[in-house]
Amino acid sequence: MHDKNYQASARASVVDPLDKGLGALETPCPPEAIAAHGWNLLQEDLSLPTAVLSQSRLEHNLAWMQRFADEYGAKLAPHGKTTMAPRLFARQLAAGAWGITLATAHQTRAAYVHGVRRVLMANQLIGRRNMAIVADLLADPSFEFFCLVDSPDQVEQLAAHFGAVGRSIQVLIELGVDGGRTGVRNEVQWQAVLDAVDKAKSAVKLAGVEVYEGVLKEEAAIRDLLQRAVKALHTLAHTGRIERSPAVLSGAGSAWYDVVAEEFSKADIGAPLDVVLRPGCYLTHDVGIYRTAQAQIETRNPVAHRMRTSLLPALQLWAYVQSLPEPERAIVTLGKRDAAFDAGLPSPAAHFRPGQAAPSPAPAHWEVTGMMDQHAYMNIAAGDDIRIGDMIAFDISHPCLTFDKWRQIPVIDEAYNVVDVVQTFF
Amino acid sequence: MHDKNYQASARASVVDPLDKGLGALETPCPPEAIAAHGWNLLQEDLSLPTAVLSQSRLEHNLAWMQRFADEYGAKLAPHGKTTMAPRLFARQLAAGAWGITLATAHQTRAAYVHGVRRVLMANQLIGRRNMAIVADLLADPSFEFFCLVDSPDQVEQLAAHFGAVGRSIQVLIELGVDGGRTGVRNEVQWQAVLDAVDKAKSAVKLAGVEVYEGVLKEEAAIRDLLQRAVKALHTLAHTGRIERSPAVLSGAGSAWYDVVAEEFSKADIGAPLDVVLRPGCYLTHDVGIYRTAQAQIETRNPVAHRMRTSLLPALQLWAYVQSLPEPERAIVTLGKRDAAFDAGLPSPAAHFRPGQAAPSPAPAHWEVTGMMDQHAYMNIAAGDDIRIGDMIAFDISHPCLTFDKWRQIPVIDEAYNVVDVVQTFF
Repeated sequence: MHDKNYQASARASVVDPLDKGLGALETPCPPEAIAAHGWNLLQEDLSLPTAVLSQSRLEHNLAWMQRFADEYGAKLAPHGKTTMAPRLFARQLAAGAWGITLATAHQTRAAYVHGVRRVLMANQLIGRRNMAIVADLLADPSFEFFCLVDSPDQVEQLAAHFGAVGRSIQVLIELGVDGGRTGVRNEVQWQAVLDAVDKAKSAVKLAGVEVYEGVLKEEAAIRDLLQRAVKALHTLAHTGRIERSPAVLSGAGSAWYDVVAEEFSKADIGAPLDVVLRPGCYLTHDVGIYRTAQAQIETRNPVAHRMRTSLLPALQLWAYVQSLPEPERAIVTLGKRDAAFDAGLPSPAAHFRPGQAAPSPAPAHWEVTGMMDQHAYMNIAAGDDIRIGDMIAFDISHPCLTFDKWRQIPVIDEAYNVVDVVQTFF
Repeated sequence: MHDKNYQASARASVVDPLDKGLGALETPCPPEAIAAHGWNLLQEDLSLPTAVLSQSRLEHNLAWMQRFADEYGAKLAPHGKTTMAPRLFARQLAAGAWGITLATAHQTRAAYVHGVRRVLMANQLIGRRNMAIVADLLADPSFEFFCLVDSPDQVEQLAAHFGAVGRSIQVLIELGVDGGRTGVRNEVQWQAVLDAVDKAKSAVKLAGVEVYEGVLKEEAAIRDLLQRAVKALHTLAHTGRIERSPAVLSGAGSAWYDVVAEEFSKADIGAPLDVVLRPGCYLTHDVGIYRTAQAQIETRNPVAHRMRTSLLPALQLWAYVQSLPEPERAIVTLGKRDAAFDAGLPSPAAHFRPGQAAPSPAPAHWEVTGMMDQHAYMNIAAGDDIRIGDMIAFDISHPCLTFDKWRQIPVIDEAYNVVDVVQTFF
């Protein structure tokens, strides 16, 4: 199954010469062969704008989060929708991750084709074709899969599809909050879902409980939701409704994973339990929303605090100064086609003039004030040492919506040599 | 050259089974073979969310804009950055377009590899690798290319690169406005660019003048900029500085192309002239920013007014209702990974329950109030006839940032059969 699917893709694990942000390629080549091209960012071997990942920072972040989960005896299922980069999934799994979290059937298939064998789809699985994708993958007995349910209608639709093809699907009931996203809100909904699962018989197997605490903003409310999830799972386990052992109890986006680890690691449901954390953005981190969240985590959480080192921003964008039309304005070849802009604009981090020995930090007063599809407006001061053709490195906020602008992302070492490349499958 | 580059891509003109939003594919297949799969959107053959293009509306919009340009005796070079879909470029060229406008060297190469032989890169060309991409393409004598210049430094960098490889590059001087984006602001800058072009000798050939009027908001200021451009080109032509005949005079994004057509079609520079219009969003149009802009155009422009029919929205997103957790809230499987959200959120257009005969218009009170990476929040009214698994079609605002979320976009006929697919090269 794996090999069949793997060959059934023209672009799986091939770096294509038509992808943006790369160096000169005569023909498609495997990512493993990229380092041999000897591309160097500072030598202008890459077509800018480009996104680059820091090899050493990725390694640091990988190890950091795995150690954090280990300290709590929790399993890590990093959210793969952030990067959709199977080469990064492989590194997360090699570092000790229990599985990969994903959001859609399409994402699940892309991960499976690249060797991922346990997927927690932290979302409702809906629709004929999407169910067919998952049912096909479940023909492989080595593949474990979970999706969420929060309504009897959805359970019935899953039961109809999976029952008809003679398969079963593992589900987690999602607990939600009023005003939140998905998830059952109250006892009546909860019981209706349970009743539907009972009726679905062997086609739908209840494996545990899931929450996404990230829709809440206050720690007290989050702890309350988490405690409700523990209690609900405890009841399910006691009444013999959980059809997987260990049962699964899962939560945690990238902003509150410490609180989830604390609450869930204390849980005693009277049965074996896999506590599964699902942060996604830790791998590249950022200098925006997630830096802020991480600072709070390191203040309030004793384990994170004790680890001393923090997560490090590992994803940068590089672009050229293309125009200096006014004394206080630079126009840079970076736009909404290249970078997230929904949680803060890219932030100038370094400045490099081709021919110089090394980049220098960007002056603190340089600031991106707006982006169009292919351009950024950057405030400078009159008389700043900046020229057409200079390269600017930008830190980013919100890695998810930056990754999805790139089909290939070069990985660089400390000397800005391209040592690897990761392909995305959005 | 064309064939060589064409083969040097693993994914050029191949529909990949790992792309999202498609039906079941066992192996990669050429787009021409897609219709034979017999996919139908309403039969749930596609994995939602998906984006779909309306075949008939694309045809309508293609013909509409070409006729508009023809009425003014102007050339059309549609901005290809909107779709980055070479199959759509081919249709634009077949409908009469003079060339394709693009924004980067990477985009230019993707277009060239798919057969485009005239590119107006409405941007400054910067950087060693980017210049190398263009210089390589210019080895083909059948390929015509232009880029913009707005500083002597940039002209010198082009001259150094193209001179060293023994090629020449055609440039348009960009006229800008204070507070705008790129483009020379004043006489001093203008003269400095001209002096640099003189020094660049045969490596940099001046072909005309370019503006992007879309940075301005007022018609009077736009007409003033356009008239300055005509006057500037007139002077260049009279002083024998234009090295292409006809000279090129180009402007026009998707919001003011009528005013540009009016002003530029009146121009008499005393020499042959190609007036080149560059709208991009007309091909799919939208129900947001460009519908508003188009309504103004049809009010103020006699040609557009006389044409009676308007541009039609041709791009929709389809997703499933995945959760109905509160009486007035539906959660839909559509997120920032799937749709533009920078110029208005997607707007519910149609509602379809699998098994029904046809979609019905979405109730006017259904409204998307927010999106996360993979989810949309949709306001409904208590008691609305809406169920888990229902399909919702959404109109969009800002096609550019919707196209770049999709690698393949099915094209459907009036019966929702998939009759073609277009691949994007972002």
